Amino acid sequence: MPLPTAVKIVEVGPRDGLQNEKEFVPTATKIELVNRLSAAGFPNIEAASFVSPRWVPQMADGADVMAGIERRAGAIYSVLTPNLRGFEGALAARADEIVIFGAASEAFSQKNINCSIAESIERFAPVAQAAKEHGLRIRGSVSCSLGCPYQGEVSVGSVVDVVERFAALGCDEIDIADTIGVGTARRVRDVFEAVTKVFPRERLSGHFHDTYGQALANIYAALEEGIAIFHASVAGLGGCPYAKGATGNVATEDVLYLMNGLGIHTGVDLNQVVAAGDFISNAIGRQNVSRAGKALLAKTRAEAACA
Amino acid sequence: MPLPTAVKIVEVGPRDGLQNEKEFVPTATKIELVNRLSAAGFPNIEAASFVSPRWVPQMADGADVMAGIERRAGAIYSVLTPNLRGFEGALAARADEIVIFGAASEAFSQKNINCSIAESIERFAPVAQAAKEHGLRIRGSVSCSLGCPYQGEVSVGSVVDVVERFAALGCDEIDIADTIGVGTARRVRDVFEAVTKVFPRERLSGHFHDTYGQALANIYAALEEGIAIFHASVAGLGGCPYAKGATGNVATEDVLYLMNGLGIHTGVDLNQVVAAGDFISNAIGRQNVSRAGKALLAKTRAEAACA
Repeated sequence: MPLPTAVKIVEVGPRDGLQNEKEFVPTATKIELVNRLSAAGFPNIEAASFVSPRWVPQMADGADVMAGIERRAGAIYSVLTPNLRGFEGALAARADEIVIFGAASEAFSQKNINCSIAESIERFAPVAQAAKEHGLRIRGSVSCSLGCPYQGEVSVGSVVDVVERFAALGCDEIDIADTIGVGTARRVRDVFEAVTKVFPRERLSGHFHDTYGQALANIYAALEEGIAIFHASVAGLGGCPYAKGATGNVATEDVLYLMNGLGIHTGVDLNQVVAAGDFISNAIGRQNVSRAGKALLAKTRAEAACA
Repeated sequence: MPLPTAVKIVEVGPRDGLQNEKEFVPTATKIELVNRLSAAGFPNIEAASFVSPRWVPQMADGADVMAGIERRAGAIYSVLTPNLRGFEGALAARADEIVIFGAASEAFSQKNINCSIAESIERFAPVAQAAKEHGLRIRGSVSCSLGCPYQGEVSVGSVVDVVERFAALGCDEIDIADTIGVGTARRVRDVFEAVTKVFPRERLSGHFHDTYGQALANIYAALEEGIAIFHASVAGLGGCPYAKGATGNVATEDVLYLMNGLGIHTGVDLNQVVAAGDFISNAIGRQNVSRAGKALLAKTRAEAACA
């Protein structure tokens, strides 16, 4: 199969990346980050979460973020909605897309939300129905698709099962998420080969973490399976709660560098993303963990010093 | 083409990794590093350099390192030899393999050694001849194979040209080296497709830097071209002299994690390599930049804390 000629990069830094930051990131900083990412050309940004502030205090200002950002015409702004109350927040905030989620690992589901995978997804039925009624897009995220911090191995069949459940709820797009970054390239191909049999390839996405350094190899393997939607987090925002000090989401700059090198169209300007990554890393006092980002910043600084 | 079932990982940390460290690394530390890597099972370790100490003071103790290490039977210990004097040092040190080098970029060759590519490789003729006479293996390393810090693009044809020159000198193995880490997967495939037409695939190796985060995707792409020898540096030792603060050699732990995930035999024990990476990072006070290394160390520490 030839590689796709164009891909959609979903920037998840403002939500998935920032949500684990301990110190509260000011609303104005979050808004500036989203605005910079919009200006860079992302077709889809995961901008906020309408989850209870008791669970995730960092995301308590979701409504303010959504009200404050400048939206680029045609771009999709997604928000996480764990329940109907979250959905109402998303609707009031004029989100374009809601994100619902379920694990492919029974142990993870039981440990995290104290119910089975099947129950956890069934609970989203009213949310999905409400989204359909109001014309919002629905994205389903399958966490632990390539491994679980509690049970270890996750079968391909259990990923297919969750994909089918999300499809039955009417999901427009479904993410195969390697929540703890343990997957490698052959497994990525096997999983996508299986799930493309039950859900359209062009509406499946790869959400990879770089915890074991595998994310870009996994993305390349997914491209070879014809997958054309990938999630990434500017400056590699976000860590791995299951391995403190380890890397989390794959850095957007590294993904864009790969796509540019492969001649695959993204519509996103790498230099503006590098600048946005530098901005947010400085703003929250966090190390920029994008390798391409750091290399390009070092190059720019060296050139400025020579000029 | 199916992926290889086994690969040779050449550990280059003790030479390529350490040579850019500013502060002198004690000889005993270098010896312990090589011994730990030998114990981990590497079939080939780049252990020292017999270059003038005026050029690379960090490598001035090459003879002492080679005399001090415990050699594992069957393993190859390689050393860099820029000239006949270096070769004499390598011979006295009982090196198994010498490494000679040339750039695929004319600008790089001129700027670094003030002569053309062709001249630079011709100068190695007496070294290669002496190595043959004494039964030492010869490895030729083609730097800047995927890009140059001075001229930018490097043509596939110029890589092929250098490979042919090294082949004519009698090289047993030839490295395609992405010295500044700018290459991406498609280019990697194109280059290997071209060079395998002039030199046996099973004696070609991939030497990738992770400066732009591409190394593992590039290794995966090279595996798809049937390449079965890869260089890597424990803990990601070594930086990029052309982008200060950026990453250099791909980390061995990340490469081994990939191979284990793909079910490709290496003969190397990942856990011992992780421990060796922790040892050298602490010994020289340098951040461990292996993602798999950091994740596995975090996991081990968490388990120890729970026990």
